[in-house]
Amino acid sequence: MKTEDLSEAEVNARHAEKMRRKKEARDKIIATKTIEKGLLIVHTGKGKGKSTAAFGLVFRALGNGMKVAVVQFVKGRWQTGERVALEKFGDQVTFATMGEGFTWETQDRARDIAAAKAAWEKAREFVMDAEHDLVVLDELNIVLRYEYLDLGEVLEVLNARPRMKHVVVTGRNAREELVEAADLVTEMEQVKHPFRSGVKAQRGIEF
Amino acid sequence: MKTEDLSEAEVNARHAEKMRRKKEARDKIIATKTIEKGLLIVHTGKGKGKSTAAFGLVFRALGNGMKVAVVQFVKGRWQTGERVALEKFGDQVTFATMGEGFTWETQDRARDIAAAKAAWEKAREFVMDAEHDLVVLDELNIVLRYEYLDLGEVLEVLNARPRMKHVVVTGRNAREELVEAADLVTEMEQVKHPFRSGVKAQRGIEF
Repeated sequence: MKTEDLSEAEVNARHAEKMRRKKEARDKIIATKTIEKGLLIVHTGKGKGKSTAAFGLVFRALGNGMKVAVVQFVKGRWQTGERVALEKFGDQVTFATMGEGFTWETQDRARDIAAAKAAWEKAREFVMDAEHDLVVLDELNIVLRYEYLDLGEVLEVLNARPRMKHVVVTGRNAREELVEAADLVTEMEQVKHPFRSGVKAQRGIEF
Repeated sequence: MKTEDLSEAEVNARHAEKMRRKKEARDKIIATKTIEKGLLIVHTGKGKGKSTAAFGLVFRALGNGMKVAVVQFVKGRWQTGERVALEKFGDQVTFATMGEGFTWETQDRARDIAAAKAAWEKAREFVMDAEHDLVVLDELNIVLRYEYLDLGEVLEVLNARPRMKHVVVTGRNAREELVEAADLVTEMEQVKHPFRSGVKAQRGIEF
């Protein structure tokens, strides 16, 4: 019998049976997942959405009453819009801006290294403290890639964090050792970008 | 001369020159991008972060004083955390829950189609109105994939939207025609998932 010969009721019945089997399989998997722990999450890849998804996690956590810290390793990455939105949550959120930080606008390597180290000192405190539930290390991958920070030292701190602490690391070109250490890694792949058709970056969307 | 023979000052000077060239190339590209328009953005792929990045865009837009509407095509996808966070922005944001909507918990195809159609009616209003700057159609891809809605009709509405309206569509398995119509498409690829090591979904991170 071909599908086209089925009545609407039969199509619906088959669909119901298929979905029931899917749900059963899904419930079985979920039942085996019992460990609760803070996750080390990495957003990498060349596509958009790495910092934006971290920003989404921040608001989900804030909505759940959690305390959040954000450390920005590249200057100006999170701009007015994000700041204004975060201010609504008062002292539930700590935002660390790192003076000049790394930026495409300067070419001073020595100063960038000093800024990365200062940002890392702050990050280490947030990662190790008992206060913040979620810590976002925005664009940490870029300073690790340029070797402005010692990867071994960063991993040591991440591995020594309190058991329930969630950490999100963003930036393209995540180092392999960090991916190894992570619980959840998503690669944002660029399929299509508006720049290709001459569209400029726009307020509220790109910044 | 090998790199190892360079003094610290020489390394820094070379770095400065390399970065100056990078910035120059980047500025040149940006200068050619002059079109301002509402973007059709698609987040697809099997990885995490599709809805979360849409959620991040919502808060960036809200922080910029824009008005936002969210339509949820799969029930329970955006939960308490998101809702509580959105409530901070009062009537800057409209959240449309679609009664039962599509859900893995039911297997009633006829009811799911009716719910998808009701959600789409609401979505069409938001996409076409002069009030909302950004509209998120969360998990629309899944109902398009199941053919609960007519793809041609959906594309027709998206293409006819006001010039400055931004629309974000999420969900795995985006239809090819939608990808064609979009300005910005990101595929979230799953590199590593905590389920694999028995870790369960956790409040504030997964929901």
